[in-house]
Amino acid sequence: MKQERGRRAGRGRSAVPPEKAGARQERKERTRQALLDAGLELVAEHGFAGLSLRQITREVGIVPTAFYRHFRDLDELGLKLVAESFGTLRQMLRAARRDITDYGQVIDQSVEILEQYVSQRRTHFQFIARERSSGVMVIRQAIRWELRLFVSELALDLSRFPVLSEWPAEDLQALAELIVNSMVVTAEGLLDAGSERDRQDIVESAKKQLRMIVVGVANWRT
Amino acid sequence: MKQERGRRAGRGRSAVPPEKAGARQERKERTRQALLDAGLELVAEHGFAGLSLRQITREVGIVPTAFYRHFRDLDELGLKLVAESFGTLRQMLRAARRDITDYGQVIDQSVEILEQYVSQRRTHFQFIARERSSGVMVIRQAIRWELRLFVSELALDLSRFPVLSEWPAEDLQALAELIVNSMVVTAEGLLDAGSERDRQDIVESAKKQLRMIVVGVANWRT
Repeated sequence: MKQERGRRAGRGRSAVPPEKAGARQERKERTRQALLDAGLELVAEHGFAGLSLRQITREVGIVPTAFYRHFRDLDELGLKLVAESFGTLRQMLRAARRDITDYGQVIDQSVEILEQYVSQRRTHFQFIARERSSGVMVIRQAIRWELRLFVSELALDLSRFPVLSEWPAEDLQALAELIVNSMVVTAEGLLDAGSERDRQDIVESAKKQLRMIVVGVANWRT
Repeated sequence: MKQERGRRAGRGRSAVPPEKAGARQERKERTRQALLDAGLELVAEHGFAGLSLRQITREVGIVPTAFYRHFRDLDELGLKLVAESFGTLRQMLRAARRDITDYGQVIDQSVEILEQYVSQRRTHFQFIARERSSGVMVIRQAIRWELRLFVSELALDLSRFPVLSEWPAEDLQALAELIVNSMVVTAEGLLDAGSERDRQDIVESAKKQLRMIVVGVANWRT
């Protein structure tokens, strides 16, 4: 009751100055991000299945129950990590294939975007690579869902290629899946690469493989 | 000292009858296999990194130190699980492509062999899918090594195709890698398939994708 009155008074006068409310919001945002970062780090050690709320909050320096001010449960935090991992990658890849007149250039650019993205979000993609086959269903499904979006967007873009315009939907889907799967394995290879030389080999090999697929396409009869 | 004399006596007379020694060897084999089975099951819950020697031996009903009669350490048990997982798959796939006159048949058979193999060793392949991206380096490397063997054997077989006989080694390697990667993702998809219908879709899609790759090959210029 007292709190209620306090809040009302705050609206009329200045019991909570706007700059202070902003600072509080900012601090809340920072704590939320700190929980995500701590979660990502702990997942790297024990996998998502081994994550404990108590451990995350200890890491961030808040009491366990305060976790619920930021996330409904650990799964919600995990799903946010999945979303953070993929971030704007899909849009970036899509932009790279806006101009489809030069196949080779689209392929080279796509592989390079992937390579840079994975290297910028290394820990995130290690989380994805691991949880893609892990035991926590809700996370595994979220990752599969993200990859399906890649596939369906790519299938749509592929249908604009003159040579593919007559293809039935399931063949476009299979082709898009082949390309996305190849990119997934490339990303996992990049995460595991021991040296700059290894990375370059993987990038070159991925470009070559995608070119093989695309050349195949032009000759595939349904 | 007494034991030593006992063993010697055993050789000459019958202090340890042959059938008893055989039974002992058999029991040892059974315990070893029980350790592997228990390890595989526990890995499914906690990942290989979470495996504890104490837990495995408790599961099997032997004292912890008895573990070392069977394996040097947990890593050796993990490596044996990797070997068990792949078993005779490589040889079976190789046999399926002995006669390369009919591309389509080789593809169909290979995908079907993979499908049956994965369904027979489901828990093993879940272990592989998971540890392929896990934190335990020695296991990850063993899996990568197995997959590399698949790639190099396939590259060798591909070089026997008339249309590929002139290809440089690194292009054959890239092609073989593309095919093996596609099979890896297919296997992971099969593990995750919710229904018989899903399984069939994955099998059909894999066959179609491999055909796309093979058709591409015939038109690829180095």
